[in-house]
Amino acid sequence: MSEVDDFLKVAHAARESAAELAPLARAAKDAALRAVADALVARTGEIVEANALDVSAARENGTAETMIDRLRLDAARVAAIAGAVREVADLPDPVGEVVRGSTLPNGLELRQLRVPLGVVGIIYEGRPNVTVDAAALCLKSGNAVLLRGSSSAYRSNTALVQIMQDALGGTEVPAGAVQLVPGTTRESVKHLMRARGLVDVLIPRGGASLINSVVEESTVPVIETGVGNCHVYVDADADLDLAMEILLNAKTQRPSVCNAAETLLVHAAVAETFVPAALARLAAEGVTVHGDERVAAYDAAVVPATEDDFGQEYLSLDIAAAVVDSLEDAVAHIRRYGSAHTDAIVTRSQKAARRFVARVDSAAVAVNASTRFTDGGEFGFGAEIGISTQKLHARGPMGLPELTSTKWVYTGEGHLRTSSGTVIAGS
Amino acid sequence: MSEVDDFLKVAHAARESAAELAPLARAAKDAALRAVADALVARTGEIVEANALDVSAARENGTAETMIDRLRLDAARVAAIAGAVREVADLPDPVGEVVRGSTLPNGLELRQLRVPLGVVGIIYEGRPNVTVDAAALCLKSGNAVLLRGSSSAYRSNTALVQIMQDALGGTEVPAGAVQLVPGTTRESVKHLMRARGLVDVLIPRGGASLINSVVEESTVPVIETGVGNCHVYVDADADLDLAMEILLNAKTQRPSVCNAAETLLVHAAVAETFVPAALARLAAEGVTVHGDERVAAYDAAVVPATEDDFGQEYLSLDIAAAVVDSLEDAVAHIRRYGSAHTDAIVTRSQKAARRFVARVDSAAVAVNASTRFTDGGEFGFGAEIGISTQKLHARGPMGLPELTSTKWVYTGEGHLRTSSGTVIAGS
Repeated sequence: MSEVDDFLKVAHAARESAAELAPLARAAKDAALRAVADALVARTGEIVEANALDVSAARENGTAETMIDRLRLDAARVAAIAGAVREVADLPDPVGEVVRGSTLPNGLELRQLRVPLGVVGIIYEGRPNVTVDAAALCLKSGNAVLLRGSSSAYRSNTALVQIMQDALGGTEVPAGAVQLVPGTTRESVKHLMRARGLVDVLIPRGGASLINSVVEESTVPVIETGVGNCHVYVDADADLDLAMEILLNAKTQRPSVCNAAETLLVHAAVAETFVPAALARLAAEGVTVHGDERVAAYDAAVVPATEDDFGQEYLSLDIAAAVVDSLEDAVAHIRRYGSAHTDAIVTRSQKAARRFVARVDSAAVAVNASTRFTDGGEFGFGAEIGISTQKLHARGPMGLPELTSTKWVYTGEGHLRTSSGTVIAGS
Repeated sequence: MSEVDDFLKVAHAARESAAELAPLARAAKDAALRAVADALVARTGEIVEANALDVSAARENGTAETMIDRLRLDAARVAAIAGAVREVADLPDPVGEVVRGSTLPNGLELRQLRVPLGVVGIIYEGRPNVTVDAAALCLKSGNAVLLRGSSSAYRSNTALVQIMQDALGGTEVPAGAVQLVPGTTRESVKHLMRARGLVDVLIPRGGASLINSVVEESTVPVIETGVGNCHVYVDADADLDLAMEILLNAKTQRPSVCNAAETLLVHAAVAETFVPAALARLAAEGVTVHGDERVAAYDAAVVPATEDDFGQEYLSLDIAAAVVDSLEDAVAHIRRYGSAHTDAIVTRSQKAARRFVARVDSAAVAVNASTRFTDGGEFGFGAEIGISTQKLHARGPMGLPELTSTKWVYTGEGHLRTSSGTVIAGS
């Protein structure tokens, strides 16, 4: 059987399972998730064994140790993965929520209900825990899932998916609701991207190049996630001590994540005080500053910034920096170079905060707070499938409700529409 | 200047205008809409004159008179178009609505606000009133709009857009917020479909082939609208008189619209009573029935149905019909052949209604009511940009809120995220 046939087989299985899964009550889904968690713990040995093959292959390929650490599973990590599945089981079920409802003037009872999306495709890199996390969130929200992880984790993911399917076999949730896309070639990703009608949405989780290629090539609707070129703007009216702490927290607390700051913008009115102090503190924290001419003028250690620097998501101890002449210029800079993830203003001025919030067109805008708070967990969602940086469907951290669609239901007693209004048949 | 340069010029103008338009207060947008309505009425002569050129060109091309009637504008129609703009001005502004909000445990004030999408592209066929309707809905929701109407209405649309831009020139809404895509070639549509980053969403309004080509070719996110292969399912427990009235209303009250019924499914238990009666009534209304073998057995006038018939949106006095052995078979038929627009069940059974509603995966499900009620006006939205048959972002009739996205805003007083929880800087 060819690779595309293999793919279509699992995609059709997911689609059929989605139809069975969608109407299940919360109790059935939660029981299935707990069965999955139990099975993962019970079969830890198999998982660690399969993972060891991935790890040694990665080592032979000369993969960096930091990447190998992300790939590696041990009993403690498997237990943590199972624990996360139990936490998802404890979350409220978004399906069936009445989003809006009314009785229309003609007596029709109208309700808008939350329903599963159907089949969700996830394309991701690196850590195999995503395999289980994503599957748990999709099952909880009533969706079947097609998983396409990193080829370097294929043996681990195969074991994890097999264990999940086996566990589901003893529950009301169909085992086919969790599927691994077969194969590790680039082609296997393409099958997923062209599976319009079989897959309802694709969520790529990874670097900018992965996301851009999915957006370009997919005919399945895509939710873009996670590229964060986040800005901290220090306003003319900023409390500069606060600004310094927010800048350092946003840049250095965890530089490798999408809500870390990548660009500092400083209003010219406070540049002479703030910039030299910030350069010293950033240098002390090991951060390389890529500055425009006005920033570079303060310190020879500043690397001259190019256009590319302002558009970058470094994910490292680097930051671009520029001096701007006004709040409007800061907004224009963010609109031009930003990725519409999270941008922060530090200011004491209500007016400045109000204008910045109204004009910055990003998924999240922080006022006097670190950009690091843009996160499903921090927002109280309990779980997160990713952070959307697009405007359709979901924007910002995506929790369980963002994995659903809605359906309108209207109930009458023989309601007919005529050119002169509603008529009730037989009355 | 080449066509693509022409396109990019108007697209950039729309993008810049969108940034200016987004933060405007409701009063400014409403005043601009009223100025547009006044200008349309005042310059009716120009509109009718430009339209006359489109009409005579269409006539020379041998266009059918029904199509010419859709194209034609006179003073009364222009007045109606202006009236519709005033109605949009009277609707509530969706922008700025707080969708969700809370104070997080760490004291961060979190709000999710409704914001405009940015630049909305509309690709549509036929009637020039859509040019003004769509522009009014986009402006009201704070969006700039790129309009790509039928080439047969190009002169009319050019006049309408010019008049709208002139009217906006005297208001706070930037004139560039309403743009006609230049040119009438197929290529000009492609520029719009490839304008990712300049255009935030594309809404194709028209037939299935238009919509499919946009979905296939667009890199801009698309909201699919309007293809309706709607079903009426007559359950074993149906009140058959009610079923007959609902069937006839759904099929014949306005056959050319997307929420008209295209397929009848009858439970085998009532087929012998219902089908012959329905065939007689449908024939009396001039409806041609394309039936499966079990339906055809009742009447020689039934045209044998092919697979294609069950997948068709006739938009005419035709209907496909089949007998099914169970509610489950009806659901399976709808899932297989339907377009996920609107599907109705006629039944007295609570249990049957509940199962049908839970299992039919369509934008709208009607219980004991005609499919014709799936409509923004009937749902009380006051206006409708189209009916989405996809699951992402919007599903079913789309009003003003469906033309918006959201933005998260969080406000602190120096909130920093640390590995041990939130710390407030300087306190």
